[in-house]
Order: sequence, then C-alpha cells, then structure tokens
Amino acid sequence: MSVNRSATALVDVPRGLAGVVVTDTEIGDVRGLEGFYHYRQYSAVELAQTRRFEDVWHLLVHGELPDAERAAAFAAETAALRRLPDEVRAALPAIAAASGRSGPLAGLRTALSLLGAAKDFRPVYDIEADQRRRDGLVAAAVVPTLLTALHRLDRGLDPVEPREDLSYAANYLYMLTGSEPDPARTRAIEQYLISTIDHGFNASTFTARVITSTGADVAACLVGAVGALSGPLHGGAPSRALDTLDAIGTPDRIDSWIRERVLAGDRIMGFGHPVYRTEDPRSRMLRELAERFGGPRVEFAVEVERRVEAILAELKPGRELHTNVEFYAGVVMELCGLPREMFTPTFAAARVVGWSANILEQAQDSKIIRPAARYVGPGAPVKVPTAA
Amino acid sequence: MSVNRSATALVDVPRGLAGVVVTDTEIGDVRGLEGFYHYRQYSAVELAQTRRFEDVWHLLVHGELPDAERAAAFAAETAALRRLPDEVRAALPAIAAASGRSGPLAGLRTALSLLGAAKDFRPVYDIEADQRRRDGLVAAAVVPTLLTALHRLDRGLDPVEPREDLSYAANYLYMLTGSEPDPARTRAIEQYLISTIDHGFNASTFTARVITSTGADVAACLVGAVGALSGPLHGGAPSRALDTLDAIGTPDRIDSWIRERVLAGDRIMGFGHPVYRTEDPRSRMLRELAERFGGPRVEFAVEVERRVEAILAELKPGRELHTNVEFYAGVVMELCGLPREMFTPTFAAARVVGWSANILEQAQDSKIIRPAARYVGPGAPVKVPTAA
Repeated sequence: MSVNRSATALVDVPRGLAGVVVTDTEIGDVRGLEGFYHYRQYSAVELAQTRRFEDVWHLLVHGELPDAERAAAFAAETAALRRLPDEVRAALPAIAAASGRSGPLAGLRTALSLLGAAKDFRPVYDIEADQRRRDGLVAAAVVPTLLTALHRLDRGLDPVEPREDLSYAANYLYMLTGSEPDPARTRAIEQYLISTIDHGFNASTFTARVITSTGADVAACLVGAVGALSGPLHGGAPSRALDTLDAIGTPDRIDSWIRERVLAGDRIMGFGHPVYRTEDPRSRMLRELAERFGGPRVEFAVEVERRVEAILAELKPGRELHTNVEFYAGVVMELCGLPREMFTPTFAAARVVGWSANILEQAQDSKIIRPAARYVGPGAPVKVPTAA
Repeated sequence: MSVNRSATALVDVPRGLAGVVVTDTEIGDVRGLEGFYHYRQYSAVELAQTRRFEDVWHLLVHGELPDAERAAAFAAETAALRRLPDEVRAALPAIAAASGRSGPLAGLRTALSLLGAAKDFRPVYDIEADQRRRDGLVAAAVVPTLLTALHRLDRGLDPVEPREDLSYAANYLYMLTGSEPDPARTRAIEQYLISTIDHGFNASTFTARVITSTGADVAACLVGAVGALSGPLHGGAPSRALDTLDAIGTPDRIDSWIRERVLAGDRIMGFGHPVYRTEDPRSRMLRELAERFGGPRVEFAVEVERRVEAILAELKPGRELHTNVEFYAGVVMELCGLPREMFTPTFAAARVVGWSANILEQAQDSKIIRPAARYVGPGAPVKVPTAA
C-alpha cells in the first residue's frame, strides 16, 4: 500500500486511461455503438463520398466547409506549399539511406523534424492562431512530397517534383510514379484519404495534443504523432490485412486457415476494432469502392470477409468481430497501384491533417497535460551505499 | 449537454489529467510536500552527491546500483556506444545547417530520429527486454555526441570525436570544447546531470510512455519526449533564469525590478514549481555547488534569491514560491563554461536516461494508453452541402 505524498490528490482511473476525458473537442467523434463517425457536424463517410480532400482539410482546420471561392483559394494555398525547402531536399538522400530498413515512416519522422527546424517553427503559445494554422499547413502539405521522395530515393530513383495543378490525391500518386494517375484511382485514393483524416482520440492524436500542451512547436507535435502511429498497437497497418489474404491464398483454404488461427488464439489481422461494436463504417465504404473496380482479388477479399465473419460468429459468439478499416484499405490501395510499404505512410498523409486540427484546438487551451504515476517500489530513502 | 455514444464509459477527471494515475512505477517519485525526490529507493540528491553518473544510469535501467565490477563493465559498455554510425555522422552537417535558428534541441530531435532508423530499432513489443535496454543505451550514449557536434557545426567548427577513457560528464565537456575539463567543473556538471535524470511523471516522460504503449521503437519514444521537452511549459529552460539575473543587472535594482514584475502579474523565471510546496531540493543542492565556486555572479544570484523570496512572501503570502531547479542550474552551467543555448540540451543529455528507464518499464505493460475526448460541437450528422 503506497501513501500519496505528492502535492496533488491522486485519481485512479481505468487502465490505459480508457474512457478518461482529456479534453472537450469540436473536431469530431466516433460513435462505436452506432458504427458512425463524423468530422465537425458531418458524416465522415458522406464527406468522403461527396467532397474533395482539400475541402475536408479546410473543414478540419478552419471549422467549416469552404464556399467555392474559399475552396479554390485554400486548394491553391496548400498546393503552393508542396515544394520542399532546399535544406530539407538536400538532406533527403542521407535520410533515405539511413532509413531504408526502417521504412518511409521513420524517414518521415526525421524529415518532418528537419522541416520544422528549417522553417523555424516557433512554440505554439508564442504565436497567433493564424501562424499555428499556417505551420500546420506547411507541414501537412509536404508530407506526400517527403514520403514519395524517400520511397523513390530508397529505390535509386530521383524524386518527382510536386505539381501545383493537381489535387492533393492526384499529386501524391503522380509523385510516386512520375506519371499522371487515372481519375478512378485518384478518386478512390482521395476517398480513402478523406475517410482516414481523423478518427476519435487515437494514440497518435493524443500524443500530438500532449506535446502541444507543453507549448512545443507544430513539428515537435507532428513528429511525436508519427512516432505513435508507427507503433503496431496503433492499428494503422493496412498491409497486414493483405498479408492475411496472401497467406490464405485460395478460396478453398479459407475455412481451414481461419479456424486454425482462431483456435490457436491468434488475432486475424484486418478484423476487430477497439471502438466499433458494429461494422466499421470505413470498411463498408472501402468495400463498395473496391467492388466498383472488381476483379478476382476483390472477389477473394469479399469471400474471405464473409467466411471469417461467419467463423468468428460461430467460434466467438457475441464478440461482433467485423472487418476494420485495414482490411479493405489494403485492397483499395493495392488496386490503386500503391506498393505495400507505402500503405501506412499513405495513412499518415491523411492523418497529418487530423493531427494539425487537434494541435490547433489543443493550443487554445493553456494547461499542460501532466498526469501522475503511483510509486510502488521499495520505501525511500534507503541510505546510498558507498561506491566500491 | 452531450450524450456518450461511444462503446466505452466516459470518466471525468481534473483538467490536464492532474493527479490522474496512468501507471504504477518503481522508477522513483517526487514528494512535493516534503521537498524530496528519489530514484528507486535512494534520495536523488544523495546519489548526485555520492555516485557517478554511470552508476545512477545503471540504477535507473537495471533497477539496482552496480557493484564495482558491474560499474566498470557498464561504464565501458556505454562509453563504447558514444561514436555515431556513419550514416548519422554524414547527415549532421545538413541537420545543423537546417536547425541553426531552432537550436540544438530541434537538431537532437532530428538526429535521434535518424539514429533509430540507421540502427534499425524494432517495435518495443517485438523484441526482448535486453534488446530494448540496449536500444535505450545506444540512443542515450550518443546524445552528448550529437549535441556537441551540432553545436560545433553551427559555429563552423569540426565536431570532436568522443573519448572512451573519459566519464560521461567529462566526455561531454571535452567534446564541447575540445580540451579536457578540470575536475571541479566536471564533477559539478556530473552532479547536475545526475539530479536531472528523472523527476516524477513530467510531460516528456509521459509522452515517451504514451508512444511506447503503441509498441513503437525506442527512437520514436525518445523523439517524442525531446519534442515535449522543447515546450516552454515543460519547465526545462535554465537559461531563462539567467536572463532574469541579466535583466536585473545589479543588486540595487533587485527590489524595484521584482516588485514591478510581480505587480504586473508576470511570472519570475526560476521561481515556483507545480509540484514542490517547499524549496526545490535540486535548487538547494545546486546552490551549494555554486557557492563552492564562489565569485560575484554567485553572490548576486544568492542575493536575488533572498530578495525575491522575501518580496514574493510579502506580495503573494502563502504561495510558497521558491527557486526551482532552473535558477541555480543556470548558474552552475555558466560556471562550468556551458554556453546558454546548451543549457536545455544539457538537461536533455541527463533526462534521456530517465526516459529510457520509463520506456523499459512501460514496455512491460501491453496496454495502449488511449484516453477519450468529449465531443461538444454541433450535433451530427448534418447533411453535407453540395460543393459549389
């Protein structure tokens, strides 16, 4: 039994801070019981199906959807920010060389940190909200440029310079391959990106807000968030769900493969979500997107989903295990020609907008987020033994 | 009034999570009411006064003070890790060039991120505890090398290669200046470093643990912590206290300068701490260290402390505002020849050991730290307006 001798009363809460309210937010919410999530007052899925990425970006960081004039101005403003500062561009080959094994997310973490320094981002409490928003735009706008450049450098290819005349999504695919993407693929990736901008108070968003609360600069906050996103428990690894499809291989092997895994107690990647007790609304949207492309890969994925849900319902009754966003996100990104190691980085290219909005909102508060730990070790002080 | 429609019950807690217990810990504690803090079962101040930095590092990451043989082995093990991997060394000029304006802490953030990638650090849950500890040693051991190299490159000087035959503290001062430091200064900095390794559940430590809880690699966790440390509210900026001394200038100006600031509602940098309701034990230790050096600067600092405490007691009775660690830390670092822009980085060179210990402890848990936010915006869904 430990005694609290700190100056603050200790408060016990559920493990992992589950359900603990850190802040009020006007950015959005996830309604796990309904299978619904929203950005501001709009359904995120409806936004993905009807609007451009840039419009939703504006909604997140300015708080409202833009009218036609503002939409054009915002798209032009962010497109003009895609080019890298010279100091960052010059350092990318060294970053790519060092990050090769760890992948583009580790490279992004380094490059964003460098960008913040090169742009001399100031502590968030020392600048006005407009400058914080601008710093967030500057950082988010270069994420596709950084990711595609690091990817290409790692393969011995020259980076492709961004184009201002393309949309965020089209320019991303363009910089990846060097050729203009077709409209169907561009729109599919754009819908995926919109649906991934934000999703409740996940660990990377929380990380960004904790760092913001110290008053650090926007780059420090984003770099911490990228680090949290890279954690396997964060749940942003759509490539793992494709690995499941590959491991199963053919439709006739679905049942035996899944039963074996479930009975061994293994988690089936691409199924189950900590918040949703229904189908993941992102999964439904992405399945519809995939089915519009069609083909044997999509048919196989749909068959795997159908069989896994049936087997999980039989073996784990009442658990409500459905496909999560990873499952069809992987299928859609594969259909759009993205290499598997770019799946999580592509997730980051959307989520950076959500992080930015959360940083802006957190910076309006001035209270540091500083919880407590309970000391449970041996009683102190014990006299320090003399060094031998 | 918002309705909770998430799948998890929401729990309301004090603002900024004050006092909210995130975890049990055996690393140490701060007893704010007693003016006492400890690492494991030992008084941190007593450790600083009687042991070597490497011994306390061992205590933090292995859980016990080393015997003579282990102490020598651990010192040799960590000393051998001071040299930078070639990929990181090669990138430092570019990092220094980009980070000049933002300072060495932004450079450290970038360089540690690069180091983690170059060393191919793996997710903490995918590796054994021994490998996690090793990753922490690898990262912490190069922090002085990185900081001094970035500092020298920024001044157009060549970095000084680390020496394995010097202690952590001596090698730090050596790499900064290129010449061997005198024993008194080395020991003063070593005592400062030991006293700064850990201090309760501060925001950077918490950040490191949140990122750890996602399963990310050790570098991702440390990079987030460096970002949090760079926030002005974190409270790790000993240079600001010296700025106060400079602004006052001479003893006859103390009273008028302080009264003016206090009556204007300004905070006096170097005074007051969110946890201590007594004198900060670090402050007492560092004042004694400074007084051993003596000289007019130290006498002036002591006089400022005496007058400020008297004036604050008069103007803000009952608030118990005393010098915090920043005040005499700045004085001691100045006496030891550290340039002011290296004060917070020097703090980081100690705290990285505390972060490492916290990462190791957090990685023994497998539960993600994922709190909640309460949506208070307009009710959703509102139909998405058609784009103009």
